Amino acid sequence: MFTSSDNNKKLFLGIDGGGSKCKAIVMNENNEILGTGVSGPGNPLHGFEQAINSITQSALLALKDADLEHIELSELNAGVGLAGVNLPVLFEQMKAWQHPFKQMFLATDLLIACLGAHEGENGAVIISGTGSCGFSYVDGSEFMIGAHGFPHGDKGSGAWFGLQAAKQVLLSLDGIVEPSIMSDFLLAKLDCKDDTSLVEVIAGKAATYYGQLANLVFDAAEQGDKVALGIVAEGAEYINSMARTLLARNPPRISMIGGLTPRLKPWLNKELQQQLSKPLNAPEVGSVLFARKELAKQNAEQ
Amino acid sequence: MFTSSDNNKKLFLGIDGGGSKCKAIVMNENNEILGTGVSGPGNPLHGFEQAINSITQSALLALKDADLEHIELSELNAGVGLAGVNLPVLFEQMKAWQHPFKQMFLATDLLIACLGAHEGENGAVIISGTGSCGFSYVDGSEFMIGAHGFPHGDKGSGAWFGLQAAKQVLLSLDGIVEPSIMSDFLLAKLDCKDDTSLVEVIAGKAATYYGQLANLVFDAAEQGDKVALGIVAEGAEYINSMARTLLARNPPRISMIGGLTPRLKPWLNKELQQQLSKPLNAPEVGSVLFARKELAKQNAEQ
Repeated sequence: MFTSSDNNKKLFLGIDGGGSKCKAIVMNENNEILGTGVSGPGNPLHGFEQAINSITQSALLALKDADLEHIELSELNAGVGLAGVNLPVLFEQMKAWQHPFKQMFLATDLLIACLGAHEGENGAVIISGTGSCGFSYVDGSEFMIGAHGFPHGDKGSGAWFGLQAAKQVLLSLDGIVEPSIMSDFLLAKLDCKDDTSLVEVIAGKAATYYGQLANLVFDAAEQGDKVALGIVAEGAEYINSMARTLLARNPPRISMIGGLTPRLKPWLNKELQQQLSKPLNAPEVGSVLFARKELAKQNAEQ
Repeated sequence: MFTSSDNNKKLFLGIDGGGSKCKAIVMNENNEILGTGVSGPGNPLHGFEQAINSITQSALLALKDADLEHIELSELNAGVGLAGVNLPVLFEQMKAWQHPFKQMFLATDLLIACLGAHEGENGAVIISGTGSCGFSYVDGSEFMIGAHGFPHGDKGSGAWFGLQAAKQVLLSLDGIVEPSIMSDFLLAKLDCKDDTSLVEVIAGKAATYYGQLANLVFDAAEQGDKVALGIVAEGAEYINSMARTLLARNPPRISMIGGLTPRLKPWLNKELQQQLSKPLNAPEVGSVLFARKELAKQNAEQ
């Protein structure tokens, strides 16, 4: 068991803070995960206080899970990857946090996902979960595409697929597009009978709500539904375009991650499907790899 | 001047309550407008208290404008047309209001707009303002199409055009669609330099915000911008479809109303453009016509 000694220098915290939850791991020098913790939303876009509480809580839970409760957060270096900090104002706000760690190395959720997927090496990731984006990290140069948010961006994401479904079903109920089994699936899932009840149910709903409707688009497409096939083709073509843009930067590996991956991947360009490599590690491991890199840079500069 | 006498039976209030303002008129038996009043939002979707306050206030302002302050609201019959009351739950809520009028005749904003446009006779209206919808009233039968809301519906509306613009500009900044003068117009209007600043500005914005971006789509289309032309063609085709659906119900007249009409009308199907008749009266006049009809029905039943 680790004690509060020099050994702790070799322990790292890795944080992956997203819009719905914040994950933390404690990792030793052999890249072994000693403990994990999960708490509430860690995206500062939804509130700074909520984010810092989630980060701290998940870290404490990870220490507890590792039977390392006697170790203080102030003894540990932390790699902290957060959604939302691609916006400069949120990055600065988080950077200014009087954090409880020995040092905090702050990065976007995209960078840590990419570093995790490719074991800290050069590579690119396509992410399609509730939102969508692409990211590459090649020779220290970061590049991002998409990640624009809902409803104006995030094409090819779960929320986008769900919103497209709702739009087409409403047009279909108005007789402007042909009836479709996707309509039956959507109305059944939301327990609605007509456009009035559907509008009452979906009015003002956020991306996470629409994300839950994405699967039925793929269910309908797999049964040959033309309207659903049209949506899937448009979403897949956007992800293909995103991948082409990323591949133009010559990443040695490219992976696809995010909750929609199993449904969307089979619809992508066949050549691209063959190029996709399995992600090697989770984003929170990428956070540790990032912190190690940054600490090494610091030591080299001293 | 009217006094508190039997003559007041011939005076009517007409209310048009929308999402941004509530308009009221006092009208005499010769369909002359004696006074007008305007107050805040009258759409119960944005709050019941706000709506009833706006309705009452606009009515009192209209009486004042007509030099009829000595007349009580309780002496007057009111036709009240409101956005939002196409939803049954809001219709019932407004219907249960302990209103200050002699009688209140409640209708949707669509019905009063249609009655106003066609002087109380059979007809249809296409509405494109911040939102979009179609409505027909033929031989006592009401029919509605669209009116689904933002961002899942309201295709061909100001909010829809603005959102499409934002989406295309973000794709263009990512290099996925070709650069376009529409991008220059949008970035200039919102004082943004790149996708990050654009996303910061538009995140979480409502329909009314996007509605303000509609004009630049038409500005760009009129200069031959291909991306803008594509958006305008899609929006116009939806309105064409809506019109076809309405015309299938054989309304003797069809009109187009709403703030986007001057920009959008020239892009519609040429034959449809020729079929469009000028709206004869404003929606608040339609409210009075509705109240008169309903009162006549009551009297006939007694």
